Amino acid sequence: MKASQFLISTLKEAPADAEVVSHKLMMRAGMIKKLGAGIYNYMPMGLRVIRKVEAIVREEMNRAGAVELTMPVVQPAELWQETGRFDKMGPELLRIKDRHDRDYVVQPTSEEVVTDIARQEIKSYKQLPKNLYQIQTKFRDERRPRFGLMRGREFIMKDAYSFDRDQDAAKASYQVMAGAYRKIFDRFGLRYRAVAADSGAIGGDLSEEFQVIAATGEDAIVYCPGSEYAANMEKAEALAPAAPRAVAQAAMEKVATPGKSTCEDVAALLNVPLSTTVKSLVLSTDVLDEKGNVTKTQVWLLLLRGDHDMNEVKVGKLPGLADFRFATVPEIEAHFGCKPGYLGPIGLKQPLKIVADRDVAVMADWICGANEEDFHIRGVNWGRDLPEPDFVAALRNVVAGDASPDGKGVLAIERGIEVGHVFYLGTKYSKAMNATFLDVNGKPQFMEMGCYGIGITRLPAAAIEQNHDDKGIIWPDALAPFTVVLCPISPDRFADVKAAADTLYAELLAAGVDVILDDRNERPGAMFADWELIGVPHRVTIGDRALKEGVVEYQHRRDAEATKVPVAEIASLIRSKLQA
Amino acid sequence: MKASQFLISTLKEAPADAEVVSHKLMMRAGMIKKLGAGIYNYMPMGLRVIRKVEAIVREEMNRAGAVELTMPVVQPAELWQETGRFDKMGPELLRIKDRHDRDYVVQPTSEEVVTDIARQEIKSYKQLPKNLYQIQTKFRDERRPRFGLMRGREFIMKDAYSFDRDQDAAKASYQVMAGAYRKIFDRFGLRYRAVAADSGAIGGDLSEEFQVIAATGEDAIVYCPGSEYAANMEKAEALAPAAPRAVAQAAMEKVATPGKSTCEDVAALLNVPLSTTVKSLVLSTDVLDEKGNVTKTQVWLLLLRGDHDMNEVKVGKLPGLADFRFATVPEIEAHFGCKPGYLGPIGLKQPLKIVADRDVAVMADWICGANEEDFHIRGVNWGRDLPEPDFVAALRNVVAGDASPDGKGVLAIERGIEVGHVFYLGTKYSKAMNATFLDVNGKPQFMEMGCYGIGITRLPAAAIEQNHDDKGIIWPDALAPFTVVLCPISPDRFADVKAAADTLYAELLAAGVDVILDDRNERPGAMFADWELIGVPHRVTIGDRALKEGVVEYQHRRDAEATKVPVAEIASLIRSKLQA
Repeated sequence: MKASQFLISTLKEAPADAEVVSHKLMMRAGMIKKLGAGIYNYMPMGLRVIRKVEAIVREEMNRAGAVELTMPVVQPAELWQETGRFDKMGPELLRIKDRHDRDYVVQPTSEEVVTDIARQEIKSYKQLPKNLYQIQTKFRDERRPRFGLMRGREFIMKDAYSFDRDQDAAKASYQVMAGAYRKIFDRFGLRYRAVAADSGAIGGDLSEEFQVIAATGEDAIVYCPGSEYAANMEKAEALAPAAPRAVAQAAMEKVATPGKSTCEDVAALLNVPLSTTVKSLVLSTDVLDEKGNVTKTQVWLLLLRGDHDMNEVKVGKLPGLADFRFATVPEIEAHFGCKPGYLGPIGLKQPLKIVADRDVAVMADWICGANEEDFHIRGVNWGRDLPEPDFVAALRNVVAGDASPDGKGVLAIERGIEVGHVFYLGTKYSKAMNATFLDVNGKPQFMEMGCYGIGITRLPAAAIEQNHDDKGIIWPDALAPFTVVLCPISPDRFADVKAAADTLYAELLAAGVDVILDDRNERPGAMFADWELIGVPHRVTIGDRALKEGVVEYQHRRDAEATKVPVAEIASLIRSKLQA
Repeated sequence: MKASQFLISTLKEAPADAEVVSHKLMMRAGMIKKLGAGIYNYMPMGLRVIRKVEAIVREEMNRAGAVELTMPVVQPAELWQETGRFDKMGPELLRIKDRHDRDYVVQPTSEEVVTDIARQEIKSYKQLPKNLYQIQTKFRDERRPRFGLMRGREFIMKDAYSFDRDQDAAKASYQVMAGAYRKIFDRFGLRYRAVAADSGAIGGDLSEEFQVIAATGEDAIVYCPGSEYAANMEKAEALAPAAPRAVAQAAMEKVATPGKSTCEDVAALLNVPLSTTVKSLVLSTDVLDEKGNVTKTQVWLLLLRGDHDMNEVKVGKLPGLADFRFATVPEIEAHFGCKPGYLGPIGLKQPLKIVADRDVAVMADWICGANEEDFHIRGVNWGRDLPEPDFVAALRNVVAGDASPDGKGVLAIERGIEVGHVFYLGTKYSKAMNATFLDVNGKPQFMEMGCYGIGITRLPAAAIEQNHDDKGIIWPDALAPFTVVLCPISPDRFADVKAAADTLYAELLAAGVDVILDDRNERPGAMFADWELIGVPHRVTIGDRALKEGVVEYQHRRDAEATKVPVAEIASLIRSKLQA
């Protein structure tokens, strides 16, 4: 490609609404152009990156035996009504009425349509397993689209769906996809982690997120540097505290803490570590009759260390707490005789169930609310000052330094951007849509399903969050819009420069290198700034003075300085760098 | 690809709503699957064809210097309001409201968005010419979607838009595209014609349709077998009749034609050729004041030979007739004193303008309505029975046998399916959206535009209309989902068959041949029927008995019989056929 034939349009400044670096750099490098809230034109430079992502994904999906098809962007509502998602999905699902006033949706994903295809096409166990995928435009009407391609409304997703005869086969299909995803992410050339994720009501471990590591990532990733263990924050577990409960030393005493309603404030006031305080979270669970009316409400007190955060997924999996909600202020006042902010497990008005986090259960001499406004209690001890809790469980998010659940060291935390997800679905959709096949005995069985997504247009944004500097983007070779840029200096003035650039360009093109020749006759400063912003990884500068010495200058986007390379060797140097 | 890993699902019968052969065969071959009215899943077999179409189009567009980008499927209404198309386009434009009640459309085409991009990105004449294209999902809410992919609602279109500094440059860009389209359609391997089409109000000849020839096509294509002349019916012209008007021989006489209100009926009743009758078409044109109120109406009588059809485009280009409408019955009665069906130019109640088709102007002794119910007049002659017409013009569609406008013979007519269109737009959109650039003198100028479409998903349907037989589809090599199918007979029983098939499969794959191995262990009859329906052009059958003779059987989809080929030669035979 020659730059003059392409559409290059870089900006000095990012638009004001660009908050994150990938959004800023994609706008400045002319890769995307905003058309509306969360809706972007994929400009030629950006589309080249997207196409490279697609090509890698397509190759590895095909290699893993998946079969590509395309499902419509605009889908009739009927199938979505069949699974109930037409109503359940809320305003994120973009709805349309056509000229005949019939309901349609713009697909945010395609479980319904693909299950409809499977129930029509797959009649026998002999046709299984099947994995059908598409790379297609999706739309989610996010309430607050932001961060460019990171959280857009219209986006491209690769979504794959596996169909199997039983759970074992489904798990094998899942593992094939998990393996393909590792190959795909390896090929992207990004640092990433496959982390265990919560698999919802289905249980088991068959849910993994593929997270691109980036300091700016919105997800916390938990991993063990000494082992393979990695999970997202929702899912991550830690070993229970190893040390037994310490012996009580302090006497229990009420202390005035006027206006100090948080553990942080109390610890500061009393000049003690936050980890000696205990916070009280009050939950409720309702028992419903057949008509859905509440017949009874159980109130629960959860105790967590002041420096720990509740993990709602873990709490929701505890016996009796599946459908918990946070208690209302009247419920709290009825049980504690006090407003939130000064609650604790001592001196309750009405009985309730007390659940202690594992770390709270081993504490001694701790501090909690006194159930009296502006007062707390210090020196509290289990057994002596209050009964042992009704039960003890892991209620909290892990923190760095917690013991890895595999016993191979302590956990560390870094941040990531979720770009892929592999998920075992079970029979959720096949049951809802009666998608059956005849098994070896001629008996109808529900298909076992899995679903597997990759955010095609999100990936370039994640890659940039991971790979950039103050000059711009730094693409890995596999994702770069062009892998090599040739920068002749004043080719209009120096015939030898133009000739050398043209020769090298032809040579690299012939070798299949994705090269762009900057024939715009820009000044060197502006030209270099453009390509550093765009992030082409390999640059060759061709100048008259260097040519007279028989050399050109090679510089990788990460190199601080250029290297002189004899003209005769530059093409093979480039080729060897691209193969590395 | 191995058939067992793919999704093959053929049907014996086409669904009842499939009217045309391409729709029937695409459904039966499992290439598409209906999801809703005019909305189809592109199944794996069909998607392979679509991807081949896309690849050819993309390669030639890139080669022609066009630059690919992608514009959103869901587009904010603002730009559509700016050009007025949001209101003008009517119910074909699918409209959406998002969660914030803002208006959006699903793109049916992208002139607005691409012009918006151009007016932001292109500042200077130095950046011109530019040609931007996308291959993207479109939606048109057709009132009556039908014929499968031929007239669907959701479809994939390649749409390109050129931007130029002046008309000459725009015409050059147009010619580059017209040339690229010829290469694209040549590569498809289909019989097609590029035909001149009406260019609307802009004038000039810069509008061509690319029509795939098919007896079932909905468009009539006019061409001259002795020259390059070709045009669609709207646009096609013929030379004026060469012979002068014949001498009047008959006397004028009124004849009773009770209930015979059409030329056909009258000719049959009087036992004369239809070509001796003249039909009267009554049009009106309104003169409007500044507020859009009608201040005056002119009524026109158009006279055409009974066997000819009016061409509305040609009529609309006549002086004074640009905004014609068909006259109302009261208007007709006021001028003719008679209801429609018995109208003629003789004995009018009120004066009107008479326009005669060129063929009518040279008729003698003709028949027309008597302006009296159930009566016609015969033996009518210009000059003697009525004044010469106000003017004479070409008012009608050409017919086979008309003299070609280039004087190189007579016109012939065949049928075609429009799959591509190249069109010079001028400044229609750039003016409406104020898309200017600075010219060499630093003066803002409107960009000159062209637009260039190819119906990516319509093309396979057109290819099938042209290439099929009673067994199924016959793909040209370039579009086939697979170019070669290997059909081993009972490979489960004959180890030599399986081994030979596997070897040939590996050999063809290694040679880059797009081959599918049918490893489903189907009976030969069912297997052959599947591949004949699907239309793979080259088939190799590998059977035990033939192998023992050292041969396999090769059959092209168009061959009546198979040919025996030595095992050692089959791979090179295939390769040579694919290069042919």
